[in-house]
Parts: sequence; structure tokens; C-alpha cells
Amino acid sequence: MEYDVVVVGAGPVGENVADRARAAGLSTAVVENELIGGECSYWACMPSKALLRPVTARADARRVPGLRAAVRGPLDVAEVLAHRDYYASNWKDDGQVGWLESIGADIHRGRGRLAGPRQVTVEPPSGERYTLTARHAVAVCTGTRALVPDLPGLAGANPWTSREATSAGKVPDRLVIVGGGVVAVEMATVWQALGSRVTVLVRGKGLLANMEPFAGELVAEALTEAGATVRTGAPVAAVERDGGDGPVTAVLDDGERVEADEILFATGRAPRTDDIGLDTVGLKPGSWLTVDDSCRVEGSDWLYGVGDVNHRALMTHEGKYQARVAGDAIAARAHGKPVDTARWGAHSATADHAAVPQVVFTDPEAAAVGLTLAQAEAAGHRVRAVDYDMASVSGAGLYADGYRGRARMVVDLDREIVRGATFVGPGVAELLHSATVAVAGEVPIARLWHAVPAYPTISEVWLRLLETYRG
Amino acid sequence: MEYDVVVVGAGPVGENVADRARAAGLSTAVVENELIGGECSYWACMPSKALLRPVTARADARRVPGLRAAVRGPLDVAEVLAHRDYYASNWKDDGQVGWLESIGADIHRGRGRLAGPRQVTVEPPSGERYTLTARHAVAVCTGTRALVPDLPGLAGANPWTSREATSAGKVPDRLVIVGGGVVAVEMATVWQALGSRVTVLVRGKGLLANMEPFAGELVAEALTEAGATVRTGAPVAAVERDGGDGPVTAVLDDGERVEADEILFATGRAPRTDDIGLDTVGLKPGSWLTVDDSCRVEGSDWLYGVGDVNHRALMTHEGKYQARVAGDAIAARAHGKPVDTARWGAHSATADHAAVPQVVFTDPEAAAVGLTLAQAEAAGHRVRAVDYDMASVSGAGLYADGYRGRARMVVDLDREIVRGATFVGPGVAELLHSATVAVAGEVPIARLWHAVPAYPTISEVWLRLLETYRG
Repeated sequence: MEYDVVVVGAGPVGENVADRARAAGLSTAVVENELIGGECSYWACMPSKALLRPVTARADARRVPGLRAAVRGPLDVAEVLAHRDYYASNWKDDGQVGWLESIGADIHRGRGRLAGPRQVTVEPPSGERYTLTARHAVAVCTGTRALVPDLPGLAGANPWTSREATSAGKVPDRLVIVGGGVVAVEMATVWQALGSRVTVLVRGKGLLANMEPFAGELVAEALTEAGATVRTGAPVAAVERDGGDGPVTAVLDDGERVEADEILFATGRAPRTDDIGLDTVGLKPGSWLTVDDSCRVEGSDWLYGVGDVNHRALMTHEGKYQARVAGDAIAARAHGKPVDTARWGAHSATADHAAVPQVVFTDPEAAAVGLTLAQAEAAGHRVRAVDYDMASVSGAGLYADGYRGRARMVVDLDREIVRGATFVGPGVAELLHSATVAVAGEVPIARLWHAVPAYPTISEVWLRLLETYRG
Repeated sequence: MEYDVVVVGAGPVGENVADRARAAGLSTAVVENELIGGECSYWACMPSKALLRPVTARADARRVPGLRAAVRGPLDVAEVLAHRDYYASNWKDDGQVGWLESIGADIHRGRGRLAGPRQVTVEPPSGERYTLTARHAVAVCTGTRALVPDLPGLAGANPWTSREATSAGKVPDRLVIVGGGVVAVEMATVWQALGSRVTVLVRGKGLLANMEPFAGELVAEALTEAGATVRTGAPVAAVERDGGDGPVTAVLDDGERVEADEILFATGRAPRTDDIGLDTVGLKPGSWLTVDDSCRVEGSDWLYGVGDVNHRALMTHEGKYQARVAGDAIAARAHGKPVDTARWGAHSATADHAAVPQVVFTDPEAAAVGLTLAQAEAAGHRVRAVDYDMASVSGAGLYADGYRGRARMVVDLDREIVRGATFVGPGVAELLHSATVAVAGEVPIARLWHAVPAYPTISEVWLRLLETYRG
């Protein structure tokens, strides 16, 4: 069978590549060997946020005078889990299948593998392997899977990864979480609130190492107050579990033993490229795909790597952004139209380098976009970090009694623009996009003074940051 | 006594003019005959938001599966009112006095009146009237007061205005609210939730007439569901109340009578300029002050009108913005430094014309910035309105079960920038600043595609609006 475009992997990224290709009139095949909708729909964004929202909403409500006394009793665990199941579409993909069909893409169920230039073989669950030919482009959108370290005893211990942590149907009495990134802190927040006694074991010296240091500090403080144990500098050396069920023990480097009922490894991601035929096109199986700003694999004129698999920015929204850019670039090239890969051009995923937003939906929320101070300095920008205690913002105090939070703006002193911003505190998730527009828009500081925050909202922190910068 | 700058009125606007003048080393007097801190601190923003937050937080919490059942019983009215008292500083201004003193401004207690060019007389509560001379500038920052119509029976009926509505210590069983603007809908939201049976009587055909029509429609729908009665096209012709207390009756145009225990008139604002000596400088007492973009009164080289009194944008944050601009302009002129009154210049309150943000803290929240479709068309811009149903945004559904809301982006088709944006729905207050940055920053639509909303937040509505615009 021949198509203009063959997409391997039908997560949000593959779906969006297909959407843009179809919008340009290109015939499009999508190959998927699991559920259409991908990690995000079933084992990441959707279920995790459905689990987290009751937790943060409750924390918020309990900080409001006149309301807090009315918020009694624990969360309704069964209702929370049922809500999660609903948002994970009960792990059925009919809705997503219907959507892909509605845009006129052909779905091929089975494992897709490259088989030389412009060729993709499909190995269906039953029946014969067959080959798809792509006239213009193959887009690899296979994403990542949990990366679990090679520790003694771990393979036989049935550890949770992000998949089990977001889809579990039962609350473990004790949960050990290994790792300190987004998955670790979000799942610690959820399961502690649902009744587990959670212990977080972090190899390094803090949580959320990719954000400004105060983000991890504030989240660790809150997790501890919620009853969880957060231990830094605590690398796990081995795992023990008899017969793969029953209690599980994490053995630390120094021999200390931490027992629990389940153990979650949230220790990073690996590209799902080990079994997609990369060797047939001269690439190394299991490697991240190196791509240009249109997401085309370097050295190729037909192969694209879009989303997490290219390791530019491992987030659903950023993958979808790349998918729009790449899908449009594929279409422009197919039709011989102009391709604009200049910085911030229509066919350049420029934001990947400069304006990647991320919200960690913990209590407090941690939201950041662009470069941290350390990243900006490492990139050679001449910058200054401007910090502000969000407790001093009227709108923050009105949002939550005893508000605790912190904001940082990283200003490029040569260009007088904002290179990055971080907000940590309750209710900041929606505030982030103001910074994303400022950073991606490269709006000059002088103009930001005219972007007046409505009073009294938390966004008044912008005014305070500008005032602090002016000094 | 002689000062560089004399500020009449010590609300947030006067305070900020003084702050900028002092930062530039100008000696500054501030004259105030009521509480330092002004309307916002005691009878507007602060108490109203302290009253509203428990109401909207409760509404939000009750829309979250797993949490809603835990949110039992009514709000704790005594605690809500005590919280309000705290945020209104118990109607004492020690804190604000201390702040003004800390910046080195002199406080003159008493009524301030112009007495010819550069002269301000102060009439203290006791003692002799005296005169202040301003070497460089007098800034009138006296704001507004409630405008109550001249209806039969009203003067003797002790109606509430915004002051009583935000400071009342008791919940009336029945409350009639006359008006359909921000004060009307916010106070209807508060008192209905605290136990009043509220009836809103609107002269015109809808609520929040200055916003996109759907804002008022969604707020009216929610107020009605909360148990309030909203009647449009219901002008009040007279008010009856025996002896000024006991039940009060609003008599409609058609003779219908609506009885209540209190009546709030939220029917607009009038400038506080009737007794500030405007006649001594050739201006008409009681009029709004007409000013240029640096907030200097037209035809004068020393008189400024800053904040609500100039009728440019009657909101605390916008008044404070003008105060920063005017204070800096006064200082620049005093020191013979360059004055930048170009569009978006440091000494031009350009946002007043193009990017005024407003959040109405009702349930749902209504947030808007810049021009509505109607305003943009009236201003002669070639625009297109792009609408999106916020219920279709994943982050919105995760925020609140059964989310209802709507967004509109008004795009300038010639310049390809956003002229205005409106979001109505739960949890949109902090989202507004993204639009404020986009509108004030005049960020091109092509660049906004690179401002990726974090998934799954409500801010993903931006992506949907852009997609809808592209068509």
C-alpha cells in the first residue's frame, strides 16, 4: 500500500502529524500496536491529572476561611479512581479511533517497523506482515517508555512504573517511590492523599532537578507536611521481593532497608526505538532520534522524529507543537511550497529551545517556562534572576490563607527580554501561560510594564517582579 | 509649606504617584480626609474579594469528583465576615500610614482643595486651614463615589452602596440589588451564598454590559442556579421605606413592587471632584478630569488627574498603572529629563486605550482584556471574533466536572494581532494575564503559535482559539 505519509505511533503526537498532513490533503496511514491515543491518554497526563485535581482542590479549599471547616473527611477514593478511569477512557480507544477516522487517516493495527527508505512494515496481531510505502515522509512518533535501572532483584519484583502508578485500582498501604522528577512528585502527592504512606527516595540532592531549586524545595516541604517522607541522597542499590508479590524492600546504598507494599520506579524515560527497524536506515536501534527544527532526522529527506522520541522536550504539549510544525513542514515540502525554518518560523519548533512550559500539578503547583537561571548562564546569556515571595502578593493571600510560594523571572540583560519564569504556589497553573507568551513573544521588559495585571489576582506578581528588577 | 509634588487623595493611586515621585527624590505631600488606602482597601477590591473567594472556592470544590461529597454544609458566615474584616484592616489605616511614611511622603489629614495654580488648601478635622504649594505638580487622585439615581423615596431609604455591601456585618434575609455591573454581580454572588435571597434588577437587557454578551449571560445563568433572581429590563422608578429602616420596597416602572430587607444601588460611579476647588483653576466642579496619556490635565502644565477621576479606566490596577506613568512623568519633567509620551512609551498610559484587563470574581469568573468585538468594530478596526466552548478543553474538564465556559479572541485582520480576549468560566482569573501580555505586547498571531500552552491546563483554550482562527 502506498501513502503520502506514514506515521508510526498514534499518541497525541502521531495524531497531530496525521491531522496536519490530512489537512493538507495528503493520504496518511497511522500504525499503532497499542491503544490509539498513546501514553498521555491512558497512563500519563489524563489519568494523573484526574487523580491530582481532587487532591489540589481539597488543599486549596482547606486554605480558605469560611470554607475550610466545611471540607470534612477524606477524599472519596472510589470516586476519585472512577473519575480517573473515566478520564483514561477505561483504557479503550474507540473515541480516538473515531477521531482519526473522521480526519480521513487510515489506521493500521500492529507493530510498525522501518524497512529501508520510505518503507514501513506492519506486523498485525494476527495475519501476515505487510509493507506500507511513504511517497513523502515517515514520521516516527513512538515516544518513550519508563527507564528502569538494572538493579539486583528489580526485574523479579514487579515494580510499578508510571503506567501502574496512574492506573492502579487499589491504594497500597505503603508506597516507595524511587526518583525525584515530575512523575515521582505527582504520584507521591496522589497516593499520599489517597491513603498510602509514601516514601520518596531521591538519588540526588533535591526534587524537580530541571526546575529552579526552590521548586523542588517547596514541593518537598509540602509533601513532608502531608505526611510523606522525602529522602534525598538516598540511592537504591537493590530491591527484594519474595516471589514477586507481598511486601517489597528497597535496599539503599548504605544497606538500610525500606519496606513497602509497592515500589514505583520513576527514574527517567527511554526512547521506544529499539524495535522499529532503525538499523534498516542506518540508525542505531534504541537511540534517540536527532532532528532539525522541522523535526526531520538529520541526513534524511523523508524521515521525521516527532515528540518525545527526539528528546527535545519530553512533554505532551511540546510534542503536539512539534507535530503541528512537522506535519506542516511535511505538507509544504510535499507540495513544493515555501518552507520557513527560520527562528520562530512556521516550520521551526523554536520554542523547544527557548520556551518550553511545564506545570507540575502538585500542591503547591510548580510552573515554569524557558530557561532557569542556571540554564541561561550555561547557554552564555548575560542574565539576572529576579525573585519575589508570592506570599506578599495580595491576590495570592486572598486565594489561600497563609499562602506560600515563590516566583523567579530570568531577564536577559542584553536584549531586555524574559528568558524564563518560574512560579511555585497554589493556583499558579493558569498563570504560567502569561510567561509563555512573554518568553516566546520576546516581549521587551519596557512593554511588559504596560501589561497590567488585574487586581487582586496572583498575576500581580508580574508587577512585583518588574519593580524588583527595576530596583 | 512648599513641596515638589502635592497629591490629593491617598488611595492606591495617590500612594503610587507619591511612591514614584519620592523614588525620583521629589518632596511629596499627600492629602487625605478619609482613610489612607482609599476605596480599594476598605470598600472595594480587598473586602469584596475576601468575601468572594470562599464562595468561588466552594463552588469549585463541589465540582470535583472525589471531593464534592466532603464539602458539606454552608459557609461559616461569621468566619467569612471576620476574614473580610481582616482584609479591610478593620477599617484602620495604620499599615498604610506606615508605608507612606516609610517612603518619606508627608501625610496631611484633612480635605484638600485646589486654590489656584499649584496651591492646595488643607482643611484638617480640627484646627486652621492651611496652604500647600506645589513647585512642580498637583495630582488629583480623589477617585469616585457611588452614583445613586434621583428616585422618589430613595434619599430617605438608607440604600446600600458598594461601601455598605462590602462592609455589612449582618446578612439581610432579602436583598434587592439595582444594577447589572461588576459591583452588582459580585455582591449578588456573595450575599446569595451567605444566605440572602437576592433579587437583581437590571435596567437594560443584560449583566456586565461592558463585556462580551456571553459573559453576562453565563453569570446570570449561574446566579439563577444559585437561587438568586435576575430580572432584566426592570427599571426601578421609586423606593419606599418607612422611617428609613424595616423592609424596603423597590417599585418598578410598571408599578410592580419588590420587597426586601436591604436595597443596594450599584448604578455607577461619579467623580469625587465636586468639592476640591476645581473652580479655582478654571474647571467645573463635579466633572471628570480630561487628561492626556501622561495623565496631565489638558491645558495645564502642573495639574494631573490620575486614576478613576479621569474616567479612562475605572479599576484599581489601571489607576495604579496610571500612577506609575504619571509619577514618572512628573519626575522627568521636574528634572528636565526626556519625557516619552509616544505610544507604549514610559510616560504614556497607552494600555488604557488598548489593554485594560478586568476580572469579575463571580462564579463563573469573567475575565477580559482589550476590546470586545463591538468596541473593536466601533473603533474602526477590521476584526474577526473567534469563539470557543471551553467545555471542550481537557484542562477545563479536569478542573471542574461539567465545566461550562466560553472564550473569545478578537483578531485584528490587518495587523494579525489580538485586540481583545474574554474568558468566562471557573478558574480563568489567572489565565487572563496571558491575554494581557499578548494584547499589550502586540504579539503577532504567527508568534502566538509558538507560545505552547502546558497540557492539560485551561490555557489550552489558546491553542483551540488559534486553530479556530486558522480554520
